Amino acid sequence: MRLLDEEHIGDIAVGAAILGSGGGSDPYIGLLMAREAIRQYGPIELYTLDELDDDDLIVPAAGMGAPTVIVEKLPAGDDLVRAFHALGKYTGRKPRATMSIESGGMNSIRPIYLAARLGIPVVDCDGMGRAFPEIQMTVLTANGISASPFAMSDERGNVLLIDAVSNQWVEVFARSCVMDMGAVGAIALYAATVKQLKEGAIRGTITLAEEIGNTARNARRREANPIDAIRRAVGGFLAFRGKVTDVDRRVSGGFAKGSARMAGSGRFAGQTLMLYFQNEHLVLRIDGEYVTTTPDLIAALDAETGEPITTEALRYGMRVAVIAFPCAPQWRAPAALKLVCPRYFGYDVDYVPVEERLGE
Amino acid sequence: MRLLDEEHIGDIAVGAAILGSGGGSDPYIGLLMAREAIRQYGPIELYTLDELDDDDLIVPAAGMGAPTVIVEKLPAGDDLVRAFHALGKYTGRKPRATMSIESGGMNSIRPIYLAARLGIPVVDCDGMGRAFPEIQMTVLTANGISASPFAMSDERGNVLLIDAVSNQWVEVFARSCVMDMGAVGAIALYAATVKQLKEGAIRGTITLAEEIGNTARNARRREANPIDAIRRAVGGFLAFRGKVTDVDRRVSGGFAKGSARMAGSGRFAGQTLMLYFQNEHLVLRIDGEYVTTTPDLIAALDAETGEPITTEALRYGMRVAVIAFPCAPQWRAPAALKLVCPRYFGYDVDYVPVEERLGE
Repeated sequence: MRLLDEEHIGDIAVGAAILGSGGGSDPYIGLLMAREAIRQYGPIELYTLDELDDDDLIVPAAGMGAPTVIVEKLPAGDDLVRAFHALGKYTGRKPRATMSIESGGMNSIRPIYLAARLGIPVVDCDGMGRAFPEIQMTVLTANGISASPFAMSDERGNVLLIDAVSNQWVEVFARSCVMDMGAVGAIALYAATVKQLKEGAIRGTITLAEEIGNTARNARRREANPIDAIRRAVGGFLAFRGKVTDVDRRVSGGFAKGSARMAGSGRFAGQTLMLYFQNEHLVLRIDGEYVTTTPDLIAALDAETGEPITTEALRYGMRVAVIAFPCAPQWRAPAALKLVCPRYFGYDVDYVPVEERLGE
Repeated sequence: MRLLDEEHIGDIAVGAAILGSGGGSDPYIGLLMAREAIRQYGPIELYTLDELDDDDLIVPAAGMGAPTVIVEKLPAGDDLVRAFHALGKYTGRKPRATMSIESGGMNSIRPIYLAARLGIPVVDCDGMGRAFPEIQMTVLTANGISASPFAMSDERGNVLLIDAVSNQWVEVFARSCVMDMGAVGAIALYAATVKQLKEGAIRGTITLAEEIGNTARNARRREANPIDAIRRAVGGFLAFRGKVTDVDRRVSGGFAKGSARMAGSGRFAGQTLMLYFQNEHLVLRIDGEYVTTTPDLIAALDAETGEPITTEALRYGMRVAVIAFPCAPQWRAPAALKLVCPRYFGYDVDYVPVEERLGE
């Protein structure tokens, strides 16, 4: 167990936004919430799975909806507390701790905020090692952990519980209801024992996010090249560098979908990148050729500062460096891959690991 | 307390379909289910509210969705049991009995089916004294009884619980989810104590349905005019008699919406009736003039047999007698009327009691 203070949270937010592959919402909103909570309630305990009892119940907490809307409707936090308590009540067990369901600017921080408010620990693991747009898109699903019971609440105080026959059905009902809520809701889901998570979750993702965020911060402080420092920290590749020339974005069915076009510069001069996203960055094509696809990770970074750019923040004229890096190895097992492969999202291409596409 | 056997249920189904004002689904489907259940489990106990303890918890059960679809997807009944148990578990109390939320061919019978399967009584009251298309459209809402917690299940085994800040919000979430389920689901809702129901419910509606059904059956047996016998049993008016010349029907947002045009015969010769419906018959206009509006009741009956015709059964060429009769007096209080007045449904007319429009 170690304690997380305000500085740690800042690094986690930045690092998680890079792992979030453009999703999980703007890190600064979650950061403000969590910093305020820590100031009010004190530092948070971060546990590894090995430090907990196998029978302890862990209940992940997150936000759900279109990031475009989440940016416009700052969450108050009570919705998250309500969803978490509703799930605990439904299971009839007291949760020992909370955790992230995904790595992302907002959804890595929201559990920390919740932990501060409720005086419970956070566990150093998550269900994706990145962010994905749909509920069932976790390695937990592939490992037989149920997203049900699923609890959702909104700013008005509405509470929903879903106990569905599959994690895909949870997604169906939750997506309809989050649209009814105004495209943003707070959720608790995938309640699992420590024993289940030891086999089913991706470990150490909070610490990984913190290391990446710390690397980026130190590079800026040393006036070193932050892009290269981040690229090395994530073990990835510089996939592209250039300027955004067009962004096509729409909110559809509860998702922010679209694409961005970029004109290359430096060693990418004359090349055109297409970045396709659905809440998260999913696919990169350069001059029509696939360069990286889901579930490998894509981080669009401000070319100067290295700050991660979420899908909803992409704008015409931005100068961007695009880093691609390997997903958590659990995603490459067939049962997991079929949940998030390019064809699931409608792209007519098979998954090829990014290191085979971009490695030397 | 008295026992309901197969013959009683048959009369209740027919009478409730007349009270259902064209909604609540085809009586014969529910009838088959309930008869089978009684054969298997024995007769059902029907209690008045006065025969129960004030603290007893009563949980109404019903079907929800577009009747057009319900006709095509015969319910198995397990969904209703699941919804009822889910609500009981959520409240943490054992329900003493069930009841109808509305009077209608299917939704008066479903609680009887459930009672047979679970060996619990049915209470002789409901929340509408007729059928209406939306969850919050009950005199219970007007009397401060919450539709939450609300449970819904489908044939697959999915279970949802909604604990919303208003009965209108229950409708919003439930409507989205029932669409996801394929436009048909089983629900349990408006859990209330006997004390609450004594003030908030419409009493005696099962017995009333049985009397109306019995009247219709006896009239047919005596070869008397069933239309006139039914008209007298409900205390209503013959609003129209004629032939269906056009039906416009569509499933939209989980509802079966539309209208039927009829050409008059007998003393209505030369007149044109427009019957507007949204799951239930809501408005009658003759030659453009409003004759009856929600919440007063409209029954379209087969002109020969007196059998009630539901909104989804209306067809070109049918010979129809249309009976209009006063709603339960609770609907005429302002708080109730605003939930179901013609303007709520989009008709540009104020409510005038049917006896003022059609009485001598």
